[in-house]
Amino acid sequence: MSTGTAFLKNTWYVAAWSHEIAANGMLARTITRAPLLFWRDGAGEVVALDDRCCHRAAPLSKGRREGENIRCMYHGLLFDKTGKCVEIPSQEFIPPAAKVRAYPVVERFKWVWIWMGDADKADPSLIPDTHTVDDAQWRGTPGYLHYDANYLLITDNLLDFSHLSYVHETTLGGSAKYAGIRPKVTRNGRSVRVERWLIDDEPAPFLRKLKTWPGNVDRWNIYDVVLPGVLLMDSGSAPTGTGAPQGDRVDAAQFFGCQAVTPETERTSHYFFQQSHGFAIDDSSVTENLRQSVLAGFQEDMDIILAQQHILDLAPDAPMLAMRMDTALASFRTMVEKAIAEERAACE
Amino acid sequence: MSTGTAFLKNTWYVAAWSHEIAANGMLARTITRAPLLFWRDGAGEVVALDDRCCHRAAPLSKGRREGENIRCMYHGLLFDKTGKCVEIPSQEFIPPAAKVRAYPVVERFKWVWIWMGDADKADPSLIPDTHTVDDAQWRGTPGYLHYDANYLLITDNLLDFSHLSYVHETTLGGSAKYAGIRPKVTRNGRSVRVERWLIDDEPAPFLRKLKTWPGNVDRWNIYDVVLPGVLLMDSGSAPTGTGAPQGDRVDAAQFFGCQAVTPETERTSHYFFQQSHGFAIDDSSVTENLRQSVLAGFQEDMDIILAQQHILDLAPDAPMLAMRMDTALASFRTMVEKAIAEERAACE
Amino acid sequence: MSTGTAFLKNTWYVAAWSHEIAANGMLARTITRAPLLFWRDGAGEVVALDDRCCHRAAPLSKGRREGENIRCMYHGLLFDKTGKCVEIPSQEFIPPAAKVRAYPVVERFKWVWIWMGDADKADPSLIPDTHTVDDAQWRGTPGYLHYDANYLLITDNLLDFSHLSYVHETTLGGSAKYAGIRPKVTRNGRSVRVERWLIDDEPAPFLRKLKTWPGNVDRWNIYDVVLPGVLLMDSGSAPTGTGAPQGDRVDAAQFFGCQAVTPETERTSHYFFQQSHGFAIDDSSVTENLRQSVLAGFQEDMDIILAQQHILDLAPDAPMLAMRMDTALASFRTMVEKAIAEERAACE
Repeated sequence: MSTGTAFLKNTWYVAAWSHEIAANGMLARTITRAPLLFWRDGAGEVVALDDRCCHRAAPLSKGRREGENIRCMYHGLLFDKTGKCVEIPSQEFIPPAAKVRAYPVVERFKWVWIWMGDADKADPSLIPDTHTVDDAQWRGTPGYLHYDANYLLITDNLLDFSHLSYVHETTLGGSAKYAGIRPKVTRNGRSVRVERWLIDDEPAPFLRKLKTWPGNVDRWNIYDVVLPGVLLMDSGSAPTGTGAPQGDRVDAAQFFGCQAVTPETERTSHYFFQQSHGFAIDDSSVTENLRQSVLAGFQEDMDIILAQQHILDLAPDAPMLAMRMDTALASFRTMVEKAIAEERAACE
Repeated sequence: MSTGTAFLKNTWYVAAWSHEIAANGMLARTITRAPLLFWRDGAGEVVALDDRCCHRAAPLSKGRREGENIRCMYHGLLFDKTGKCVEIPSQEFIPPAAKVRAYPVVERFKWVWIWMGDADKADPSLIPDTHTVDDAQWRGTPGYLHYDANYLLITDNLLDFSHLSYVHETTLGGSAKYAGIRPKVTRNGRSVRVERWLIDDEPAPFLRKLKTWPGNVDRWNIYDVVLPGVLLMDSGSAPTGTGAPQGDRVDAAQFFGCQAVTPETERTSHYFFQQSHGFAIDDSSVTENLRQSVLAGFQEDMDIILAQQHILDLAPDAPMLAMRMDTALASFRTMVEKAIAEERAACE
Repeated sequence: MSTGTAFLKNTWYVAAWSHEIAANGMLARTITRAPLLFWRDGAGEVVALDDRCCHRAAPLSKGRREGENIRCMYHGLLFDKTGKCVEIPSQEFIPPAAKVRAYPVVERFKWVWIWMGDADKADPSLIPDTHTVDDAQWRGTPGYLHYDANYLLITDNLLDFSHLSYVHETTLGGSAKYAGIRPKVTRNGRSVRVERWLIDDEPAPFLRKLKTWPGNVDRWNIYDVVLPGVLLMDSGSAPTGTGAPQGDRVDAAQFFGCQAVTPETERTSHYFFQQSHGFAIDDSSVTENLRQSVLAGFQEDMDIILAQQHILDLAPDAPMLAMRMDTALASFRTMVEKAIAEERAACE
């Protein structure tokens, strides 16, 4: 579990929902153990600075917006949006080292992404496509949970949906049949793809509140988990025969899920998510119903993950026994470990 | 204090009161830093398994009873009462390593005992005799306290009753005369025996609520503390002259106390106890009165022990100065250290 | 920040307000990680002993006063006011090592000072002059705050008053002009002197509630911070021209502040203070008003210092960038480090 105590830096992390950073407000949030301050400049562009004054480490989030600048309200240093100190009380000379780090930030589809590593490697084209979070063809509700657990325990959970039959038996999951299926797992560079089809079964419990069909359905969950923890998932159900892998998904309940797990510290995490429905998009009762089902389900996940973290705390080095169902999970952990090791090697 | 951070494994620990493990229930309890799950099979026999799934370390206590088996409700592994995994979703093959450890358990006189070490050494005849906890000739009330302190601070307390005059001056103890007596201390293999007689003194404060005599009494506390922390105590008072070591204990108030200290972690402990009276056994007011006195007294013990633990936390390595009254305590600590060292040596 | 985890021993620390140690009471307080017990002997003299019985480390503060002695209420050892054990239950012989450490204590001007180092170096003439805390010419109110922060973060705060313009903008401080002034900083052996004059400015916000003048004032803060953390400050305001460095301070509002920062542990501190006014001393509304302003201001300090401590906890070794305003702070930290290093060298 050594990967749990180091963090990938050269990657895009989801830092916040757009609405968390108000026009004149400030958001303090710690990511990969770095305290950060998020705010918007006059043009509304999000700025991310170290939330630690270069002088005596006071948090700038306890400071004051002054136009396009932030003043540290401990001893009065003023920083511009690039992190450069532009005023120091009682001295004219501003040393070049008087600055706080500014991080590359991209706001896209209601999510604010941050690059914690080398700024010159921060290529926005590497940001996963989460357009369904903000797309007229999809409806969903912004979600956030704070976790008292290492982030990899959350991505583990996302990478093995056999837990749906047990953790979410009466909510998002369903019968043990679901767990009995072997998903197709593919590694793609910096992501793992999981494809799982359940053919000719009853609709999942949560789905029965959203849509009715005369008979059984085919159910699919096809998703990528991208480093270091972004899930993009096409899921849904359609009448048996029309949903199957090559089916045309007629009369389907289709969903797209975007989820992002961002490490706060080694032992705590941020979890951002939106599960959107692509059918009945003008029916707000479906949106609300889905919101409630997702929250209930994610609370079930948190319950088992915190319990798991507690057990791991008692004996962090006790072994885990790999099962076939761990294929995706193990691939992803290996990918994380390798990426972190490569970053470290490049620094030496 | 190094003994406080290691635990004796090849020994019987009290794990629970029988009533804590209901017929269809599950009890999660950590002992010697190992998370454990207790439940009863169809025959009512107590089963103790590691409360940590061999797969991803989820606690089985968050799982589900399925007849004689327990299903982990994270990813659905099913374990039988021997700890063997008998079902893994989505795979036929069950690797031999797919199991959780099952521990030898004996239920006797309302207490559930567990053996944390080598199962083939788990000889039930080594279990101390606590029959008074469940014996028609004795009456008492089950007690349990959770301690935020190392277990040896609790056994220290039990091994030196000179504290009765100070910690329990107005409850279980009495005057300084009691502390002034030198008990006879004997080592017996894996236990220490302490014998203390106070001849011709007033009855202890708690005793005055239970029984009256025209004059002074002889008072005795004769007890063994058995590794790693079980106290068995014959105590009582009888009119002066009849109670004394060779006396016939006519018109005596006789008690038998069974107490067990079980380490939960290095810094927390379980404390099980029943103080039974062997006189006036059909008088429930005596039972209730005794229960209240014992709880009040044990709260006094906890108060001083937690304060002591707090002081030790500030400087764990500061020296302690041995007194003559520490004879039993020191013998017992030496016994614990030696037993742990022997266990470790045997593992190398 | 290595100085934060060691403590100067050969120095006088403020341990308590006199009124915290009642005639027959006991005060338990930890200083430089040592648990201490304070009480008064028959003559009313303060006694300070290790609050840890030499026997089994129980705190004597859970014990009992018996005349001029203290009895440990765990196992009954009795200690006199020199810390010598004078009675041990059940044994006649009292080993010479049976004692707890007694510390040199001086009670002066309502404060109790303690010397944590070598007793033979405890020269009372080294105690800073805090007579204004108990002087008919001055009025003030005893103050105490407990800090969840390292003590040097508090002395840092006291050594750089440029924070008045930011942390205390609307209370004790005022405009940014104050921060713009460069104080005169002088090192004097074991103390740092800071002199800061603000000429011809509006009275500070808190001052407007205490006294009115027709026009602007000259404002001064002249103070010493003495090892390891005692501030003695002459401050005030007087009509412009009369207050200036060589002015006669006619119609002035004069104050004297005594503050003492005493480390409790590496991560927690005691903060004692009294801000006294030397004008309108018979006007209790001025005293009360000043008390409220000081408390409001010190709460602002605590708010920023705890935030700073939180940021430092995330990355204790991240660098700080020295500014010119840090002259006094840096001198003082260097002085602390040097004094601690010298003490250590002397022990080797």
